[in-house]
Amino acid sequence: MGAAILSGLLTEILIPVAAVIGIAFSLIQWVIVSRVKLSPERPSANNSSKNGGYTDYLIEEEESLNDHNVVMKCAEIQSAISEGATSFLFTEYQYVGVFMIAFAILVFLFLGSVEGFSTKSQPCTYSKDKMCKPALANAIFSTVSFLLGAITSLVSGFLGMKIATYANARTTLEARKGVGKAFITAFRSGAVMGFLLAANGLLVLYIAINLFKLYYGDDWEGLFEAITGYGLGGSSMALFGRVGGGIYTKAADVGADLVGKVERNIPEDDPRNPAVIADNVGDNVGDIAGMGSDLFGSYAESSCAALVVASISSFGINHDFTAMCYPLLISSAGIIVCLITTLFATDFFEVKAVNEIEPALKKQLIISTALMTAGIALVSWIALPSSFTIFNFGVQKSVKNWELFFCVAIGLWAGLVIGFVTEYYTSNAYSPVQDVADSCRTGAATNVIFGLALGYKSVIIPIFAIAVSIFVSFSLAGMYGIAVAALGMLSTIATGLAIDAYGPISDNAGGIAEMAGMSHRIRERTDALDAAGNTTAAIGKGFAIGSAALVSLALFGAFVSRAEISTVDVLTPKVFIGLIVGAMLPYWFSAMTMKSVGSAALKMVEEVRRQFNTIPGLMEGTAKPDYATCVKISTDASLREMMPPGALVMLTPLIVGTFFGVETLSGVLAGALVSGVQIAISASNTGGAWDNAKKYIEAGASEHARTLGPKGSDPHKAAVIGDTIGDPLKDTSGPSLNILIKLMAVESLVFAPFFAKHGGLLFKIF
Amino acid sequence: MGAAILSGLLTEILIPVAAVIGIAFSLIQWVIVSRVKLSPERPSANNSSKNGGYTDYLIEEEESLNDHNVVMKCAEIQSAISEGATSFLFTEYQYVGVFMIAFAILVFLFLGSVEGFSTKSQPCTYSKDKMCKPALANAIFSTVSFLLGAITSLVSGFLGMKIATYANARTTLEARKGVGKAFITAFRSGAVMGFLLAANGLLVLYIAINLFKLYYGDDWEGLFEAITGYGLGGSSMALFGRVGGGIYTKAADVGADLVGKVERNIPEDDPRNPAVIADNVGDNVGDIAGMGSDLFGSYAESSCAALVVASISSFGINHDFTAMCYPLLISSAGIIVCLITTLFATDFFEVKAVNEIEPALKKQLIISTALMTAGIALVSWIALPSSFTIFNFGVQKSVKNWELFFCVAIGLWAGLVIGFVTEYYTSNAYSPVQDVADSCRTGAATNVIFGLALGYKSVIIPIFAIAVSIFVSFSLAGMYGIAVAALGMLSTIATGLAIDAYGPISDNAGGIAEMAGMSHRIRERTDALDAAGNTTAAIGKGFAIGSAALVSLALFGAFVSRAEISTVDVLTPKVFIGLIVGAMLPYWFSAMTMKSVGSAALKMVEEVRRQFNTIPGLMEGTAKPDYATCVKISTDASLREMMPPGALVMLTPLIVGTFFGVETLSGVLAGALVSGVQIAISASNTGGAWDNAKKYIEAGASEHARTLGPKGSDPHKAAVIGDTIGDPLKDTSGPSLNILIKLMAVESLVFAPFFAKHGGLLFKIF
Repeated sequence: MGAAILSGLLTEILIPVAAVIGIAFSLIQWVIVSRVKLSPERPSANNSSKNGGYTDYLIEEEESLNDHNVVMKCAEIQSAISEGATSFLFTEYQYVGVFMIAFAILVFLFLGSVEGFSTKSQPCTYSKDKMCKPALANAIFSTVSFLLGAITSLVSGFLGMKIATYANARTTLEARKGVGKAFITAFRSGAVMGFLLAANGLLVLYIAINLFKLYYGDDWEGLFEAITGYGLGGSSMALFGRVGGGIYTKAADVGADLVGKVERNIPEDDPRNPAVIADNVGDNVGDIAGMGSDLFGSYAESSCAALVVASISSFGINHDFTAMCYPLLISSAGIIVCLITTLFATDFFEVKAVNEIEPALKKQLIISTALMTAGIALVSWIALPSSFTIFNFGVQKSVKNWELFFCVAIGLWAGLVIGFVTEYYTSNAYSPVQDVADSCRTGAATNVIFGLALGYKSVIIPIFAIAVSIFVSFSLAGMYGIAVAALGMLSTIATGLAIDAYGPISDNAGGIAEMAGMSHRIRERTDALDAAGNTTAAIGKGFAIGSAALVSLALFGAFVSRAEISTVDVLTPKVFIGLIVGAMLPYWFSAMTMKSVGSAALKMVEEVRRQFNTIPGLMEGTAKPDYATCVKISTDASLREMMPPGALVMLTPLIVGTFFGVETLSGVLAGALVSGVQIAISASNTGGAWDNAKKYIEAGASEHARTLGPKGSDPHKAAVIGDTIGDPLKDTSGPSLNILIKLMAVESLVFAPFFAKHGGLLFKIF
Repeated sequence: MGAAILSGLLTEILIPVAAVIGIAFSLIQWVIVSRVKLSPERPSANNSSKNGGYTDYLIEEEESLNDHNVVMKCAEIQSAISEGATSFLFTEYQYVGVFMIAFAILVFLFLGSVEGFSTKSQPCTYSKDKMCKPALANAIFSTVSFLLGAITSLVSGFLGMKIATYANARTTLEARKGVGKAFITAFRSGAVMGFLLAANGLLVLYIAINLFKLYYGDDWEGLFEAITGYGLGGSSMALFGRVGGGIYTKAADVGADLVGKVERNIPEDDPRNPAVIADNVGDNVGDIAGMGSDLFGSYAESSCAALVVASISSFGINHDFTAMCYPLLISSAGIIVCLITTLFATDFFEVKAVNEIEPALKKQLIISTALMTAGIALVSWIALPSSFTIFNFGVQKSVKNWELFFCVAIGLWAGLVIGFVTEYYTSNAYSPVQDVADSCRTGAATNVIFGLALGYKSVIIPIFAIAVSIFVSFSLAGMYGIAVAALGMLSTIATGLAIDAYGPISDNAGGIAEMAGMSHRIRERTDALDAAGNTTAAIGKGFAIGSAALVSLALFGAFVSRAEISTVDVLTPKVFIGLIVGAMLPYWFSAMTMKSVGSAALKMVEEVRRQFNTIPGLMEGTAKPDYATCVKISTDASLREMMPPGALVMLTPLIVGTFFGVETLSGVLAGALVSGVQIAISASNTGGAWDNAKKYIEAGASEHARTLGPKGSDPHKAAVIGDTIGDPLKDTSGPSLNILIKLMAVESLVFAPFFAKHGGLLFKIF
């Protein structure tokens, strides 16, 4: 077996150091962004950023550069957006608070009751000859780590939202100086979010493990089982972020578009539209805070899944701390790799023209993946014994360290494949989106048919990529292999989040340019940033769902181990009905979330119409609309509408586990996973394709595109309809499915001891 | 154990007698329909149908009743439709012929090679001490029964199409006399199709079993394994019917609508539209021949699945012929029950007003289900021993005859539940469709969002119904229980097909009325028939997919038995990757079929535009369009476009089985089943709902509907877009998925011995 090269002490030091470096780096980016001044009084702002490493010829100064009025207006709009977002988040936190407390009590009661709240130590599950801490301790610590995970997620989401709303107007102002400067501002802000989240997540988890160890001591099995609560906490906050935020953003967007673009024929982001601030707020709460909490959840869950499986392997039994921390070391390496990668975009190279934006973002993916492959190799070599044993569904499996390298690397590369396929299907540089745009010639109906077909088709390669990584990692290292493959896909999370958050920041920047009445040329630049952002947003969603699939499978495996089921045989009625009902759940859930967006959007439409009809001079631009009411409508509607889908996700495992038992629950988890991942990918790609097909026609950059345009032509109108339909698909129902499949899995894992002991009531009665 | 009450001899007599009664009844209906004369010279036609049992007051004579011109025109249009349909089918048969011969050779080679084409007898699979017929015999007889199934399916589809095109103009002419007369003509014609198909399918199967027995003698295991080829044959023809026919019908429909309704602003079915005949042909080849071959396939497969499982149970081992024929006796009882049920619509009660149509059709479902429950009880009592043993995945399971009654009955009742839920979600009498119609106020985008959400939601209850029937029948009688539950759902197939075929016939009748220039009043009557037809078509699709789900599970179970796998454990990498890739297949397949409809429709659009632009006087109605070219375009496009999806379905089991082996193939089958059933239900209900939301606005029957209309209003235009999108969903991609899941399962079953022996090459190499 042998021990790891890296000593335990060095591991203890390296992990927090990497996390602290990540946090420091993110603060540095923040400071750089903050040098762009939003107060027009001090023109030195330009000088200071000139000293920041930019060459002069990028700065194409415009007449409006020193226009105090414009700067003031940008600052004003920014603060309205920031206020709206903060107000949404604080309203959300009231609900979250109630939920957190209630669910924490539930976690405690369910887990505590497994051994009747006994405080006696008990034999360990996997090594019956040793004594482990009582179930009550498990209940208490699981509850604590649940709260920790939830709070970390909230803080990360909140900070991400803050920096995004801090950066959007700054990006607009920088766009006056050229597309390169705007790009770098938006990208740096995205990096703040990415590094903060990755480093914070790692640090809190690391500290929690060390603190818990003070109590648990040698009982690593109990320790890491309790730690799974961290994943549950992170993921349950993602429910609010993704579902609530998703409904918010699309209710505002669809509502604003339906009255503004369709009925009143005013452009997107026109300041006369009362829902325009709500729409921009939505980009921040949905795409930034929501996406962040989703990926944080995946990250926390895959770490926990890997740790809980490792705790019963030879690492855990031999108390090999370095090897045990392998998942955390991978994440630490990821932070350093992403840091270097970021420098390629911000310092080593420069974006000088519009057509360099998308390649620059793509290069980020490629560079981070290539560097990380080396990072994984290094970590696998120094942190793992050359050979060790994994406990896999009751069977001991011998694994070599290079095999584990392949597990992590294949997850990482599968992520890259998914990213590129997503780009191919959603970027208007390639034929799929151009075909969809072309189908607008014959109207909205063919546009929708072609778009849906595109989404379905885009599922094929990602599923094969996921299947191959599952097969390889599963074959090499069982469920531990799957968990680290997921971690591999998420190891470049800081870069992934940076390019992902870049999208909504650019989108907001464009909105601010429009509202502040800046010139057409500025708007063109922000639109170019935004178009690239649409594609990266789709790539980010691809990553999110890909990693969610791997994570849920890892959690599912951990659940099965913990619930002590040896096989999940499709050919038993209990499992099969679980499988088919599980495969139905994503449809039920999507029906709820789509309907929610529809209803909330209709409320918004009524309010916008009311304002246009009752506020004199609004259409003429002489009176100001009442933005706050629209923000409030979106806030209230989204939080109310997220209850039913939220309840479906949270209650299904509890009901199925309690009444039908662990076999049926296994079927439900597997069914929801294999069905949900398809809908999620197809929904977000369809939506992304429609959005970019519309942008393709609007930009009119090719001969073909010009035959379809210009804005206002019949094909363009058809494209706008597709775009509106795609909004809830790509930003609400699609990405929310990640939460459905992950949260049900992690919840099942946490409650597994209860279900295994007391579950299946219905079958026990009959 | 005991023996069945019914003697073997009586069974031998009863089954063919029931089949012959069914065929005779269908001929009688045909004769009654044929009394409506299409030649205007002989006015005695009215007298003869007056004597056919109708009361006088139903006949509301109109001025046009004796208008020779109109009758001539109807006859002319009918013959154009009939010619178009016949020409499509004959072109299709050329492809089918090549496919049938090639696939027959494949079946022979794969199965023959299992034991190296040896002519030596071999030990039986399930009772090793007995000798069974050589594998070569199995190969030959499987090939023969494959061809028999295929030919029976073709003949049934062809005859159904013939009667439908024979009946459509007659329904139009009867509509002049009142809605009741038109209804009964359309319904009787549907019954011809329903009874012919059910009775023919039973008779051919029965004769084949008896002929094969002459060779197989006591080797029932071999006999019924060979008979499974019948299901494969039936189902592979359904591929052509459903997929080819589905693409045909929607290419023509969408193409006709896009130019006619949207660009030229002429009504549906306007004779000036060059694609109008192709559109009407499509209703016959897609909805009649396609649906018929689909349900025939399900029927043949569930019978075969039940028989092959039964052959290795105590029935087979004790050579209890009556019990062995239990599935066939259930079908026989079904024919008699449906016959009585039909009389309720045609003779016992009369439809007098428009609002009685839908209830009359619904009553058919309820009556047939209630009577059939008694029928099942009777058959279970007299044809089964009071207790017997089933061989279930290597375990002997003792089953009582009343338990088997529950299995069949729960399938039957689940079908009724699915039917009613489908009706609720697709009929414009209920709030879901009305909500969708209401969402048209804010445009096409909200219509599409609400429609998609409706489709997703409509999946919930049918899936629970299917899950409950699976659980009950599986728990009571293993895979045999599932097979007979599927048979229970299909036992009222004659009635199901009658009300289903009624829809396209009414649709055609409306088209003919429009084209023949009949009065608005006539068109209103045929529209009312058609609206009810849309709902029954959706119900029919619900049945088709529900039964397909049960059938494929039964086939899957039989495959697993035959491939000698003992468990299909989700927690093995081989199975899990099969599961996730299998769940992806319906998306791949739908992407292909939807894109096919889109491409074929665009070709049609070009041709229709060309004719409008180049034929002078076409818009003015002074020149006739070239219908034949449009028919040819649809024919060629549909047959060419069905190749890739067809290849996907046919090749997947062969490739997976050969290279990855039976475990992965099991995963693929389970994944495709649980994922496909959801998409199929949601796609067809979404489409049905959009269609009826449009009709709801057009009919303007309520205060609410009138606020949305009239035709040509903005909400109506939005509704038309939804309807057009729904066309390929509900008539092509959705129903085609039935074929995907069934055909892959039955193909796997037939080739199981080969895969078990030689499959999994890839894993053997590495």
